[in-house]
Amino acid sequence: MNNYKAVIEYDGTYFHGFQKQPGKVRTIEGELTKILSRVIGGKIGLGYAGRTDTGVHAKYQVINFRTQKDLSLYSFKWSVNSLLPEDITIKEMKRVENSFDPRRDAKWRQYSYQVVNSNWQSVFLKKYSILITKELDIRSMQKASRSLIGQKDFASFCNPECIGENINTIRKVFKFTITKDCASNDLIIFKIIASSFLYNMVRIIIGTLLETGIGDRSLDSFKEALAGRDRNLAGKIAPAKGLILARIEY
Amino acid sequence: MNNYKAVIEYDGTYFHGFQKQPGKVRTIEGELTKILSRVIGGKIGLGYAGRTDTGVHAKYQVINFRTQKDLSLYSFKWSVNSLLPEDITIKEMKRVENSFDPRRDAKWRQYSYQVVNSNWQSVFLKKYSILITKELDIRSMQKASRSLIGQKDFASFCNPECIGENINTIRKVFKFTITKDCASNDLIIFKIIASSFLYNMVRIIIGTLLETGIGDRSLDSFKEALAGRDRNLAGKIAPAKGLILARIEY
Repeated sequence: MNNYKAVIEYDGTYFHGFQKQPGKVRTIEGELTKILSRVIGGKIGLGYAGRTDTGVHAKYQVINFRTQKDLSLYSFKWSVNSLLPEDITIKEMKRVENSFDPRRDAKWRQYSYQVVNSNWQSVFLKKYSILITKELDIRSMQKASRSLIGQKDFASFCNPECIGENINTIRKVFKFTITKDCASNDLIIFKIIASSFLYNMVRIIIGTLLETGIGDRSLDSFKEALAGRDRNLAGKIAPAKGLILARIEY
Repeated sequence: MNNYKAVIEYDGTYFHGFQKQPGKVRTIEGELTKILSRVIGGKIGLGYAGRTDTGVHAKYQVINFRTQKDLSLYSFKWSVNSLLPEDITIKEMKRVENSFDPRRDAKWRQYSYQVVNSNWQSVFLKKYSILITKELDIRSMQKASRSLIGQKDFASFCNPECIGENINTIRKVFKFTITKDCASNDLIIFKIIASSFLYNMVRIIIGTLLETGIGDRSLDSFKEALAGRDRNLAGKIAPAKGLILARIEY
């Protein structure tokens, strides 16, 4: 059996998330499974590093699949890419050890979140960012974000699904940066690197930080939200379309 | 009569070019005229700095329209933007002198052209760039592009429409740069500034430069193509989707 790892990219706008669903719902896993199976000539199943929700994008998602066949990587990748819809593509592909598991073996994952801080939003960024018209104070968001670094209990920044489900809500955040885009002064890019993430964690963190950025939440209130381990203390969840799975490291 | 100038942006992918056409063809002028007329409450006509072809994008196109009404600019812009389809938006708007004409008064125009030089193309760039898999020699393209600077006869870089039509094919190119994108090492951005452009001029220049970049055309051959004032001496026209109207200065 051969185990193949592929790095894929997708524009999540017109997908109902990553994970395959019953019925005619368009999902990333569904499209990939269909095309990969067709090119290989036999049904294959996918492993993946993590699900993404409806509307969330990926510049770097990792999948794996197993097949008896020896694939010629270069031509296989071209065949698959020419059959995939224009909003999914395979970036890289290689054969890996049979034991490789994209979810379990990931050392860290990085997400980006894009916010346009202006009185108008470019048509080229609409699907990949949210618009905030009030001026954002980047420094106060940076100060608040520092409290997230390290091994912490992120229960406040988890979807209600976490509650009562005996989920371990401790995660390790390695890095959090907030910078302006190199080409556009209006585009603010949040980057967060962690061992792994709770469900909706990045979007709730961003939503809460943005409240600090527009002056609706003090630094103390942000820290209390984290310390209180209560979803009600954190802010509103930020929309999916600004979120991009940016990197997974093994 | 009030004369309003607006800077607009559009993703040209799903438009049959800028200019209004008979029938149900979707054009930028058509969509703009429809929504502006609806919000103003009466038919208006548009002036514009220049047409763009099917598939060509604009980060900065300038239009004007005249109306008896005194528009409240801020709320007018919001109303129009909320009604426009998601691939057109008004960036800026202001009242200008009655004599202002966006085409005649333009001092210079800038176009960008985007080329991904890699063995794969990001889904986020597919609609706004072309893919060249052979390695491009940026330095030799830069050398060749230097011969374009100044007041020259660009007959070789004009659509056959120019031929025999007694069109003045002399234009003044102020600047031509070829650089890598600040965020992506694979994305090469060509920028050209000129007083005005002949029909298809940028796309034929880019097509010819790319032949130099992949080693299929020498520097001398590029210079001969320019000097010969013959469309047959220049290269293939580059696809529309990589082209972006980037700036117009008054």
